[in-house]
Amino acid sequence: MTAPAGQDLHPLDRAAQDLLFRAARTADAFAADPVTDEQVHAIHDLVRHGPTAFNSQPLRIVLLRSTDARRRLLPHLSRGNRDKTAAAPLTAILAADTSFHDHLPRVFPHRPEIREWFAGPGHAGEREAHARFNAALQIGYLIVGIRAAGLAAGPMAGFDPAGLDTEFFPDGRLRSLVVVNIGRPAGTARARLPRLSTTDVIHTL
Amino acid sequence: MTAPAGQDLHPLDRAAQDLLFRAARTADAFAADPVTDEQVHAIHDLVRHGPTAFNSQPLRIVLLRSTDARRRLLPHLSRGNRDKTAAAPLTAILAADTSFHDHLPRVFPHRPEIREWFAGPGHAGEREAHARFNAALQIGYLIVGIRAAGLAAGPMAGFDPAGLDTEFFPDGRLRSLVVVNIGRPAGTARARLPRLSTTDVIHTL
Repeated sequence: MTAPAGQDLHPLDRAAQDLLFRAARTADAFAADPVTDEQVHAIHDLVRHGPTAFNSQPLRIVLLRSTDARRRLLPHLSRGNRDKTAAAPLTAILAADTSFHDHLPRVFPHRPEIREWFAGPGHAGEREAHARFNAALQIGYLIVGIRAAGLAAGPMAGFDPAGLDTEFFPDGRLRSLVVVNIGRPAGTARARLPRLSTTDVIHTL
Repeated sequence: MTAPAGQDLHPLDRAAQDLLFRAARTADAFAADPVTDEQVHAIHDLVRHGPTAFNSQPLRIVLLRSTDARRRLLPHLSRGNRDKTAAAPLTAILAADTSFHDHLPRVFPHRPEIREWFAGPGHAGEREAHARFNAALQIGYLIVGIRAAGLAAGPMAGFDPAGLDTEFFPDGRLRSLVVVNIGRPAGTARARLPRLSTTDVIHTL
């Protein structure tokens, strides 16, 4: 089901709607063009403005640029994700920083006491839940931002998070949430999968 | 810290960047204009294209339009969130549907077996984690979509989720993640809080 014909959003113009959502697609295959650090930084410079609770910004982006880093990643991916990741121009681990609260006095300076709500081993559960949820919000913004830069994202949840965290984050601070391939899409996208209808999703009380 | 001067994203134009991220702000105060069902449906019709794992789309949006629904909500909010919510043109509960898997045969039809990975009481933990994470991604898209419609979002995590779920979702299927006020912003936004720098967030291996 789609919205009634003629219904549109304003003021975001149709070309931008298409770029970010309607025509954008998750990509499995990419052109060979490199994704530069300048592109990644420009994406981050845009989407870092997206809101998070207490402005906590727990998302961390680990770019796997070296051959060695890519080699360390692949065994932790599910088999179906390995070949496309090995061939992608850039792959990043998107992780939640469970020590986000150490930045709170800087990023939420008018309420410095909030750092203490998360500090210490007795709050590890709240810290982890807060980091995972808010980093997931930020991954939503980041996927939009990758598309805003004219690139496509291929986000993957098919990996062994415990194995990947042990390999890349042995100090236990970061939790891997998504592995994402990034590049200019190539080839033919698969047919778009069905979306739930408005009546499935929106309820009014 | 900002990106180097002159650095910009293409092809999303600057006005759209400003609308969605750079000039957009979390709002506490709103103009009196109503937010119509048509606006909410148009926002959903745009952002429902955002990707989720297995196309599972677990986000549910509960619009609190009646006086009674608003009255039932307010006691579950932290005190600082009550007055602004009582005054907002529209408030929605954004929730994760832990029975998202029942839709998988329809929305991920080429791999119908995946429903079984989540089915039954033995998989309640995976189901809940998947629903929460993917609904959070979708909340990221939704906040962008609210801004795309020329509105502002005031997302809040300051509420009692157990109390709210008991009040609104007694069958245990939905988990409230965020309560969001929606409307045309009014008044003066607070100074933007500091964002983490590129070097805090992006690491290269």
